[in-house]
Amino acid sequence: MERPRHQGMAKNTYMRWRLPLVCLLWEVAMIVLFGVFVRFGPEADAHWEEEKREMNLTSDIENDFYFRYPSFQDVHVMIFVGFGFLMTFLKRYGFGAVGFNFLLAAFGIQWAVLMQGWFHSFKYGKILIGVENLINADFCVGSVCIAFGAILGKTSPIQLLVMTLFQVTLFSVNEYILLNLLHVKDAGGSMTIHTFGAYFGLTVTRILYRPNLEQSKDKQGSVYHSDIFAMIGTLYLWMYWPSFNSAISDHGDAQHRSAINTYCSLAACVLTTMAFSSMLQKKGKLDMVHIQNATLAGGVAVGTSAEMMLTPYGSLIVGSISGIVSTVGYVYFTPFLESRLHIQDTCGIHNLHAMPGLIGGIVGAITAAAATEDVYGKEGFIKAFDFTGEYQKRTPSIQGGFQAAGIVVSLLMAFAGGAIVGGILKLPIWGDAAAENCFEDGGALPQVPEDEESDVYHMHNPDKPASP
Amino acid sequence: MERPRHQGMAKNTYMRWRLPLVCLLWEVAMIVLFGVFVRFGPEADAHWEEEKREMNLTSDIENDFYFRYPSFQDVHVMIFVGFGFLMTFLKRYGFGAVGFNFLLAAFGIQWAVLMQGWFHSFKYGKILIGVENLINADFCVGSVCIAFGAILGKTSPIQLLVMTLFQVTLFSVNEYILLNLLHVKDAGGSMTIHTFGAYFGLTVTRILYRPNLEQSKDKQGSVYHSDIFAMIGTLYLWMYWPSFNSAISDHGDAQHRSAINTYCSLAACVLTTMAFSSMLQKKGKLDMVHIQNATLAGGVAVGTSAEMMLTPYGSLIVGSISGIVSTVGYVYFTPFLESRLHIQDTCGIHNLHAMPGLIGGIVGAITAAAATEDVYGKEGFIKAFDFTGEYQKRTPSIQGGFQAAGIVVSLLMAFAGGAIVGGILKLPIWGDAAAENCFEDGGALPQVPEDEESDVYHMHNPDKPASP
Amino acid sequence: MERPRHQGMAKNTYMRWRLPLVCLLWEVAMIVLFGVFVRFGPEADAHWEEEKREMNLTSDIENDFYFRYPSFQDVHVMIFVGFGFLMTFLKRYGFGAVGFNFLLAAFGIQWAVLMQGWFHSFKYGKILIGVENLINADFCVGSVCIAFGAILGKTSPIQLLVMTLFQVTLFSVNEYILLNLLHVKDAGGSMTIHTFGAYFGLTVTRILYRPNLEQSKDKQGSVYHSDIFAMIGTLYLWMYWPSFNSAISDHGDAQHRSAINTYCSLAACVLTTMAFSSMLQKKGKLDMVHIQNATLAGGVAVGTSAEMMLTPYGSLIVGSISGIVSTVGYVYFTPFLESRLHIQDTCGIHNLHAMPGLIGGIVGAITAAAATEDVYGKEGFIKAFDFTGEYQKRTPSIQGGFQAAGIVVSLLMAFAGGAIVGGILKLPIWGDAAAENCFEDGGALPQVPEDEESDVYHMHNPDKPASP
Repeated sequence: MERPRHQGMAKNTYMRWRLPLVCLLWEVAMIVLFGVFVRFGPEADAHWEEEKREMNLTSDIENDFYFRYPSFQDVHVMIFVGFGFLMTFLKRYGFGAVGFNFLLAAFGIQWAVLMQGWFHSFKYGKILIGVENLINADFCVGSVCIAFGAILGKTSPIQLLVMTLFQVTLFSVNEYILLNLLHVKDAGGSMTIHTFGAYFGLTVTRILYRPNLEQSKDKQGSVYHSDIFAMIGTLYLWMYWPSFNSAISDHGDAQHRSAINTYCSLAACVLTTMAFSSMLQKKGKLDMVHIQNATLAGGVAVGTSAEMMLTPYGSLIVGSISGIVSTVGYVYFTPFLESRLHIQDTCGIHNLHAMPGLIGGIVGAITAAAATEDVYGKEGFIKAFDFTGEYQKRTPSIQGGFQAAGIVVSLLMAFAGGAIVGGILKLPIWGDAAAENCFEDGGALPQVPEDEESDVYHMHNPDKPASP
Repeated sequence: MERPRHQGMAKNTYMRWRLPLVCLLWEVAMIVLFGVFVRFGPEADAHWEEEKREMNLTSDIENDFYFRYPSFQDVHVMIFVGFGFLMTFLKRYGFGAVGFNFLLAAFGIQWAVLMQGWFHSFKYGKILIGVENLINADFCVGSVCIAFGAILGKTSPIQLLVMTLFQVTLFSVNEYILLNLLHVKDAGGSMTIHTFGAYFGLTVTRILYRPNLEQSKDKQGSVYHSDIFAMIGTLYLWMYWPSFNSAISDHGDAQHRSAINTYCSLAACVLTTMAFSSMLQKKGKLDMVHIQNATLAGGVAVGTSAEMMLTPYGSLIVGSISGIVSTVGYVYFTPFLESRLHIQDTCGIHNLHAMPGLIGGIVGAITAAAATEDVYGKEGFIKAFDFTGEYQKRTPSIQGGFQAAGIVVSLLMAFAGGAIVGGILKLPIWGDAAAENCFEDGGALPQVPEDEESDVYHMHNPDKPASP
Repeated sequence: MERPRHQGMAKNTYMRWRLPLVCLLWEVAMIVLFGVFVRFGPEADAHWEEEKREMNLTSDIENDFYFRYPSFQDVHVMIFVGFGFLMTFLKRYGFGAVGFNFLLAAFGIQWAVLMQGWFHSFKYGKILIGVENLINADFCVGSVCIAFGAILGKTSPIQLLVMTLFQVTLFSVNEYILLNLLHVKDAGGSMTIHTFGAYFGLTVTRILYRPNLEQSKDKQGSVYHSDIFAMIGTLYLWMYWPSFNSAISDHGDAQHRSAINTYCSLAACVLTTMAFSSMLQKKGKLDMVHIQNATLAGGVAVGTSAEMMLTPYGSLIVGSISGIVSTVGYVYFTPFLESRLHIQDTCGIHNLHAMPGLIGGIVGAITAAAATEDVYGKEGFIKAFDFTGEYQKRTPSIQGGFQAAGIVVSLLMAFAGGAIVGGILKLPIWGDAAAENCFEDGGALPQVPEDEESDVYHMHNPDKPASP
């Protein structure tokens, strides 16, 4: 406020060009890299007719597109509407939640197609993509959306894009270590998406700690309609989570099983969330924050094990526990994290993603370790854990050990990566939001005037034309 | 208000523990029962590889998952977003509509998996589930959501859970009688879901009649944004209804046909609804209530016959009629039901589900009775009506008679069941809402303060921490 | 205002009966025409068992329903929720946007099934329909929703219905010329849907030019929540656009490829839209109008070429360019169109559909002209462009020429058709909105009172019953 005016104007001019420059530069880089590396995979290429003959497929319906496209669209909705609207609860930051989520996800999926492609779909010098790559890119960006939840309202769009660039990179490395080097199963991403994404975001928000956020505390509340908008996000995440956990599982029984396990876990989670929300509140009221968030923990917590023979009642147990842990987290841990550890976690991702993600990793390790040929069938056992080739000799208990190792690796990557990226984001070149502007649209987005009407930014307004 | 304070506090303490206790107790019961009874069906079990060989299936795409999962997700959206948001029109009960719908549906689907499983998927002492069970559980809960529409805003969450428990049970019994004993076709549930659900709910709300609801009449209105939220519910129900009616039809032509018939019926229904809404209103205005509700009657009214050879023009006729009946119902019947029969029907389910459900049952009976081998083809005729085994000798006209009997049974079950459950809900142990609090968030949900901002319930608010 | 009162009353009475009459008359006409012409296609007919045998299909999963139904539902959501909510940004016209879009689309799809059926699915005197007809009907209506965007808030529902009737007719003729006579490829409808729909709508709004709209300029703004509602429309259009462009492509690789190309194009489009939005605004702010609209241009611009071997990086380039063109259009062209050419384009469809549609047509022509057997494979080449039968000799460069001719034909049809239909809409018999009522609910829809509460139209209100 007391800043000399000309300095502010200079900064403004600088700001004005920074976001366009970064966006355009990165898009050009994407075009060049896609041009050099990315091509259609055999099932999306016009040579598919020959491919079909070679692979002895009798029908077009055998194309992976028909196995995964409906799930892909559900996942797509989760990333863009689910995460976007879940974060609209802040009364003055609805545009920021939906808009910046849109921006970072659109950028992130392009970079993720490349990073994950180099690791997993690289053949003859090209990345060959199909619908599974799109799903994986969405998954990868999901972990960025999670981290975004911790720093929501406190960063500039440039900072978000920089974080996205680094987080997608680290995600892909971590995923490669887990899936390829450790040969770990994690189809729904309890470890790779949720544990990694959440602890990464929490570390970043710790590094970016602002002691003076008190002054914008009143903006961290919600209003009636913003809470109903947030329920749109909640419900789409909740309803489509079975698609999330089953989207990249093996064809057939594995996809089917993942969907059922996730459905069961989520249903149970709602009940225990409501129970503990009511129990831990004064007067037994239900807390909208819990209903919006903790009800989803059941999806996170079966992310690793959903495609295994967790069984429906196993899923109910896992869902029940995760709902309790998550709700208790909102009531007790979040205030503790903020006051003692200086971790300002806007959306409470520690409760929705971090702890349930850990539960998911552990449940996955136990379920894998407990697998028997009797339960899975001889062929099913090998297929479920990919115990072929160099992993032919792996036993369930060894697999369980590797699964556990996967949790540790994800945590280490998240802490180390988050610390480094947090440090980078602290560099003064990105232009962060002033404390008094936190949790409020404005900055790069149109501000919400006091009377909740915004004429400034709308081109239809004839008196204040939008042109420069 | 004049109640002694200590009594109020005692009641409060009691209230505070009741919802948690019921939720937790029931979730534990679900876990135990699932543990004893529920297992994966052959298409979701890891033994699927062997199953495939036995059944001579050459591809994973033959798994029922790929036939039904996209429809399942659409139905899932209808239950949780469709019904939830359709009921957000009340200006002060948005949380209650979406939140309690979420709670009862999450509980209901678990109990439905068990109840319907015992009746239809019980083999060797276990309930073997697959994606079709999930759809059926959603369907069953759909009938509870319908009944919820009649008592919206007038009951406590405990009462809703108790109603759900009983209604799911009765639904499953009724469904068993219709589908198994009477061998009736009802894939889209005109009788089992809509007629049963609606008359059940209307009977319950009759039993719970409150003469003094006048004082909260002003809260029964809507506001601009609550009406737009409600349109989200309307549109998702309208768009996905073809999936609803086709979700559990036979593979192939039956699913295909159901979707087309429903699409046609719904399109016609919009036109006649708009026509009659405008015609019956002063000044020719359209009524948002009709647009939100009566436009859906076309989906209900072809619930039984959509999978039959109703033909597209038949669907247009049925849709047109149901739109008219439903709109006329809102204008004339609902006020009559309330003033003369003391049936307070908050959402007007009599117009959206009860009457169109009856039409659906009747149209189904007629379409079945009119079926000929010429129209269906020899094989198609047998397949469409499952005229195999003990039903080999059944003729279309006999089938029509049984279909009609299905309507009567559903009505009797609804009236008798509704009366009993209504009586149970009147017991003073469940803690119902005081008349002055009806149609208003608060009670178990955070209240909406006058200025439409609610700081009370949000954990992000530092001054009023959410911890107890 | 100064109009004599009795005349107003007479007009009112006339108004009151006009909308009902038109709706009912047209629905009756639909029923008669469907009765005479429309039957189930072989894959939706109960004779399917015999059909399967004849066509040597071994599984029900070969039914076209399973190839296209998930995409159909996504397209359905785009038409009803996507377009409907995209237009809710006007602060006082939310009901009109969603409600009238609902009305015209529901009517339009019925008429489109007939019109397109006569041209494309007519066999033995009957129109044989399946899921592809439903998608095409939705597509056709999509072009009406686009045109609706230009005249949003300025027309009566009758005028909209009349426009729908004519536009669907002209759309079908244009589509027939392009697809059948010119043998042009346009699966995602860059030319048939977007170019035609947008220039048709722009011509109509030019004809209906109202010089005195200034007085309702303040209603053309948006409010905070209306802009968030609009983001629901934006996101659903953005997320499901891959389904839109792939819905009617050939089975297998073509559908797969269309989805990937569209995904890439849309992702790139978001980045360049944000860049140019920030760059062209004072202070570097992002403009919600651009985020809501220009981010979608990437889907329009690959509508023709998405099913071709455009390649992912080609899609990124097309998406990037279209985002820039669209954003620049909102800033510079829209004000120019209004002030100089008297084209009042409420939603800016010139920027979202017209220009990107032209780009899409041109990119399609170039991609077709550049096709080689090397890139497509011998069989893939023939399959992709349908170079069979009488088109066996067509070369890529000739095909490119025909594609370009398709653009010209679409433009001519749009201008000529729009001029005629605009003239028809100017006839005084339809009852258009008075200038002071433009962009405001009311007229045929319930008005929004100043305090944003509307008790008038809600049947639950006991004091002011809804009955006539």
